[in-house]
Amino acid sequence: MEKKQQEFVTHITPKEEDFSQWYTDVILKADLVDYAPVKGCMVIKPYGYAIWENIQKELDARFKATGHKNAYFPLFIPESLLRKEAEHVEGFAPEVAWVTRGGSEELAEPLVVRPTSETIICAMYAKWVQSYRDLPILYNQWCNVVRWEKSTRPFLRTAEFLWQEGHTVHATEEEAEEETLKILGIYKEFAENVLAIPVVVGRKSEKEKFAGALRTYTMEAMMQDGKALQAGTSHNLGQHFAKVFDIQYLDKDGQLKYAWQTSWGVSTRLIGAIIMVHGDERGLVLPPKVAPVQVIIVPIAIHKEGVLDKAREVYRQIADAGIRVEIDDRDTQTPGWKFNEWELKGVPVRLEIGPKDIEKNQVVLVRRDNFEKVAVPMDNVVQAINHMLVEVHKGIYDKALKMRENFTHVARNFDEFKEAIEVKKGFVKAMWCGERECEDNIKAETGATTRCIPFEQEHIDDHCVYCGRLAKHMVYFARAY
Amino acid sequence: MEKKQQEFVTHITPKEEDFSQWYTDVILKADLVDYAPVKGCMVIKPYGYAIWENIQKELDARFKATGHKNAYFPLFIPESLLRKEAEHVEGFAPEVAWVTRGGSEELAEPLVVRPTSETIICAMYAKWVQSYRDLPILYNQWCNVVRWEKSTRPFLRTAEFLWQEGHTVHATEEEAEEETLKILGIYKEFAENVLAIPVVVGRKSEKEKFAGALRTYTMEAMMQDGKALQAGTSHNLGQHFAKVFDIQYLDKDGQLKYAWQTSWGVSTRLIGAIIMVHGDERGLVLPPKVAPVQVIIVPIAIHKEGVLDKAREVYRQIADAGIRVEIDDRDTQTPGWKFNEWELKGVPVRLEIGPKDIEKNQVVLVRRDNFEKVAVPMDNVVQAINHMLVEVHKGIYDKALKMRENFTHVARNFDEFKEAIEVKKGFVKAMWCGERECEDNIKAETGATTRCIPFEQEHIDDHCVYCGRLAKHMVYFARAY
Repeated sequence: MEKKQQEFVTHITPKEEDFSQWYTDVILKADLVDYAPVKGCMVIKPYGYAIWENIQKELDARFKATGHKNAYFPLFIPESLLRKEAEHVEGFAPEVAWVTRGGSEELAEPLVVRPTSETIICAMYAKWVQSYRDLPILYNQWCNVVRWEKSTRPFLRTAEFLWQEGHTVHATEEEAEEETLKILGIYKEFAENVLAIPVVVGRKSEKEKFAGALRTYTMEAMMQDGKALQAGTSHNLGQHFAKVFDIQYLDKDGQLKYAWQTSWGVSTRLIGAIIMVHGDERGLVLPPKVAPVQVIIVPIAIHKEGVLDKAREVYRQIADAGIRVEIDDRDTQTPGWKFNEWELKGVPVRLEIGPKDIEKNQVVLVRRDNFEKVAVPMDNVVQAINHMLVEVHKGIYDKALKMRENFTHVARNFDEFKEAIEVKKGFVKAMWCGERECEDNIKAETGATTRCIPFEQEHIDDHCVYCGRLAKHMVYFARAY
Repeated sequence: MEKKQQEFVTHITPKEEDFSQWYTDVILKADLVDYAPVKGCMVIKPYGYAIWENIQKELDARFKATGHKNAYFPLFIPESLLRKEAEHVEGFAPEVAWVTRGGSEELAEPLVVRPTSETIICAMYAKWVQSYRDLPILYNQWCNVVRWEKSTRPFLRTAEFLWQEGHTVHATEEEAEEETLKILGIYKEFAENVLAIPVVVGRKSEKEKFAGALRTYTMEAMMQDGKALQAGTSHNLGQHFAKVFDIQYLDKDGQLKYAWQTSWGVSTRLIGAIIMVHGDERGLVLPPKVAPVQVIIVPIAIHKEGVLDKAREVYRQIADAGIRVEIDDRDTQTPGWKFNEWELKGVPVRLEIGPKDIEKNQVVLVRRDNFEKVAVPMDNVVQAINHMLVEVHKGIYDKALKMRENFTHVARNFDEFKEAIEVKKGFVKAMWCGERECEDNIKAETGATTRCIPFEQEHIDDHCVYCGRLAKHMVYFARAY
């Protein structure tokens, strides 16, 4: 037998010391990603990709259950298409990658690598939509997109990332608005019930809305360093694209009408949110519903007769119940070393089984989130694990909610506002006059942006926190990723 | 009630008249794809994409069951990486798309949009592989790739297509060879058991192998026009890439050794194969295991009391059994029109239910492949459908096998060879000396290429069919897509 590696050295920078370095340490050491030899691009390693697969599975089922279908549109968009919608091109042209050569030929018209697919999809919808009978169109695609970002961070902002983008067409404004809000509802339910991340939902300001949209809705999450993260957006595109792409349908009344559209998306950025909302000093803490491994079995005294056999028997029982379980049967590491490694990787439940447990016909379960330990009779193990997975989800959701509450402040005047943003950090709820000028000034002076105008409005004051004019909305402000 | 559309006009060109036009008619009218406003690119519409999703699901389960994990590598490959392996760059450089500008800046080093990912993945493997303990690495990715093709056809050859590419690293040549063949075996089993497409498996000639591989294995299928289609390949890359990318591991014996690698892939081209192997004059005939809709329910006399209710009751029963079923309850079309449309779309089983059936407590099932009709007692419907789906699979597999057999000829001399290729069409089994010169001459004179050196060798003659020198192998030749 080889000498076991006794010491597990994670070298994770403490969160309080340097949150950004903590994040980088965790994603690399938990083996989620690696840096690629292409500027601003990441390699998503199997452990990270498996989280994305689980996210896809959960969301895809929700989209399909609400009548959406998947399709696939081209990666390349001719420059002329991108340029059709004025606001859209202004928003995206500065950050796209350009294909100018194919094989050995210079292209007559450069192609853009899609930063988002409204324009190429609208070109098709113009062809497909003729009559009211063709509506609604409810399509989604899972794909890669590219945005030529100057400063990048794995999952949070990369030159290439993976996402889903839904694109729908409707006969009326009401239907488009209903779809936009329905999807936002799905996103919120998914964030809370699957990722265990509480979110604030509301509308983006004109400044912060999607380039080309009529209205953008968003869900915003709070990270442990007091910065907000936009976790998903749903846009009512109005008739902006329909008018420039000529998407018209013949209505029942014999009139030719412009269609109404929506688009909406979430991306691999959600993995960044999971890390920054739930992670702790030992590493990742994964929400059970998307954890690639939900239960890790660590046999104790692995060479004692019967231990490994019994561990494998328990493994089989758990796997057969549809729980994602692995057994760490390496004989090159001590149990303690393994505990540390699987904690770093955020596995929600650890199952220990050793000679004493076998004697007592039990196993020991340990929760990743609060390290609570419980001995469970062998014939109750599946039920106990299922219960613990639910408890872990609740535990980390409640913790995240409390964290967000501690990071949510009310500002009645600009001094309070600045103190909240700069010292306390997090969300600041404050009144706003609705003018772009105030929004710009607040950002220039504090670095905080309007995250959203929440659906749940509160009356904090009559006046704008910056200019003192009559207030229109209560807004969540924050510094953000 | 609106006037029903009585006549269903498919306008599908007869196969015998113009196979290529028949193919185009079928893919467009069955709503699988549409042409995109980007040269050589296709839009995969929901009905086509759902076939791809089913292919993915089936294959992904097989990859995972054999220990492979999914990951994601960048879309962009720096030019210098692509140029590292000499044969590889020679094979791919002429057909890649080049990104030369990001945002408003010219890039110092142009980026290639991946035509395949060996080079970017090897750059990562060089970093990840240190010790024999790190091996094997068994990764796969599902993604889009781009090849700047001059002449394109939807699914068969497009500038952008979707695929999976597996990339593995092993300690020894034997393990790499074993992996290469294991994957080929999975592809063959999948083609036959899922797509109902019989395939010939074997090795590619040096000329036809993958650019940079040591050995390429392939599965080749026969289309109804007598042309072959390469349906999947598995490459033993040897140490070609390991040596230029410096992928070395410290072995148990303390020696630093170059690793052995494989790569393998299948693509959306498989959808083209399904169409061209199984389709008929009425349109698509889909293999039940990948058909987006396995059973279409067409109520007869839809406005008669109780018909639609009963149809929906049957629908629920079938859906609950996990069968992909839809009900066509449009009141704007006649049943006959609907029959035609769902035949065009290749749905394996049609279920008719009308007042007379309800009276007799039965439904009528009709097979798409041979139009056999059977009345089935209502309480036996799920079992009867499951049975019929199996029968359709067997029926179309046997038909495809027979078609291939009719398209497989033996040539003992070059006159026979030419007649077989030019008149009879299909595969020609013939002996070959193994020299590139003969392969080139045969192609120049007949348009036929070596499809593969099959594992199942037969002794047809002692001499090469072209040059008369001593033969080395029996080869499948054909004109191919």
